Amino acid sequence: MKIDVHFEPAAPLPDLTGSLVVVIDVLRATSSMVEALVNGARGVYPAPSTEEAIKLASSLGREDTILCGEARGLMIEGFDLGNSPLEFSAERVAGKRLVMSTTNGTRAFFLVEDAVKVLVCSFMNLSAVAAAAVAADSIVVVCAGREGLFSLDDAVCAGALVQRIRTAVGSEVELNDAAMGAVEMALTFRINSHFLAATSTGQHLIEIGLREDLEVCAEIDRHSVVPEMDDRVIQLPTEGSSGRKP
Amino acid sequence: MKIDVHFEPAAPLPDLTGSLVVVIDVLRATSSMVEALVNGARGVYPAPSTEEAIKLASSLGREDTILCGEARGLMIEGFDLGNSPLEFSAERVAGKRLVMSTTNGTRAFFLVEDAVKVLVCSFMNLSAVAAAAVAADSIVVVCAGREGLFSLDDAVCAGALVQRIRTAVGSEVELNDAAMGAVEMALTFRINSHFLAATSTGQHLIEIGLREDLEVCAEIDRHSVVPEMDDRVIQLPTEGSSGRKP
Repeated sequence: MKIDVHFEPAAPLPDLTGSLVVVIDVLRATSSMVEALVNGARGVYPAPSTEEAIKLASSLGREDTILCGEARGLMIEGFDLGNSPLEFSAERVAGKRLVMSTTNGTRAFFLVEDAVKVLVCSFMNLSAVAAAAVAADSIVVVCAGREGLFSLDDAVCAGALVQRIRTAVGSEVELNDAAMGAVEMALTFRINSHFLAATSTGQHLIEIGLREDLEVCAEIDRHSVVPEMDDRVIQLPTEGSSGRKP
Repeated sequence: MKIDVHFEPAAPLPDLTGSLVVVIDVLRATSSMVEALVNGARGVYPAPSTEEAIKLASSLGREDTILCGEARGLMIEGFDLGNSPLEFSAERVAGKRLVMSTTNGTRAFFLVEDAVKVLVCSFMNLSAVAAAAVAADSIVVVCAGREGLFSLDDAVCAGALVQRIRTAVGSEVELNDAAMGAVEMALTFRINSHFLAATSTGQHLIEIGLREDLEVCAEIDRHSVVPEMDDRVIQLPTEGSSGRKP
């Protein structure tokens, strides 16, 4: 098995043919997607921009579609929800489609849309993603980063994922430089809301009054689901299927 | 004091105005520059490509100019030297100008050429660079990386530099996410030629028969010089000057 980690989406990605891709945006896109899907959302449609999100929501039909996401961390005017995992309660999202536009996370999904299989990872579903990935020959982990830059929360999550996969596989796993570095970071940083508060994205969220998001985003294995992107829609795979749209 | 580390040159650099910039390419551009300048080279002229290097060497005057560098790790046809630190002996380089073109390292210098002060760092002159940097208010450390990607050797060198500066400063130092991650990596990886051999660039150098380069590039504080780039030329500052060209 081979695992490549990519810290910064601005850097060139390898050919993704034949690789399982895992996208990580701890603060907060992938954490929010996990929470929303657990709470019964039918699917999350990542959008590359606010404008595209609005267009997509109206083409999907506004009555059972929720527009959500953020720009610079804050809810976008005219949107229904922001990007805090706790906003995505069952009362709000069950049975709904979510069109989501965020600064970093949803854009990362567009970079990897050609991949055959794309999984959604956060601390909140870490072990479930690791278990789903152990059978792959080649894994590419893409960190959403922060405005094109290295994000410590995503890197440590990537390292924790690689470490779990490596332990489960038991045999030799070939790591690229970033994967080696990520594993060491995951072994030294203690993952909790204080750790997230020290990262640049965490600091920004605290500044804009969203400290409680850090608590939930730091909850390792809060859920055991593995959302998967297929044809630009992120869903929980239904049993016996490969996660096709319902 | 504020220290920002940038792991990948493909990612956007901040405004460098008012910052001290440190460029790191452990394997091998900045290591070779240090060795060459210690051995009496008059100056190193980084070139962004093989073609530009050849042009620059002929405009400088071919008789006391050495063309050096690599493409994919190997010496370039028609060049005088490759990019192994040990090639840059006093017999070969004393009194000469070096025009250097390498895959990653020399390009990184072009990204930061607008900075007021640019220092050249490797494991070979780590403590000297740290000592030269302690008085700065803002430091930006640019890792050359490998073909636009994260390079573990450069990241660990950056972390070791940040850690030395932080210890010397004694007071609070503000770190970006990459600097925090780099420090942890520098504290966990033991820096020696075995560490370098595990990195992707190190593996490539071993494959092309250059394993002995790893030994010298891993020699922490082999020298105590701080080469500085001024007006596109890298030199050792002369005493009492700020490193102007002689």
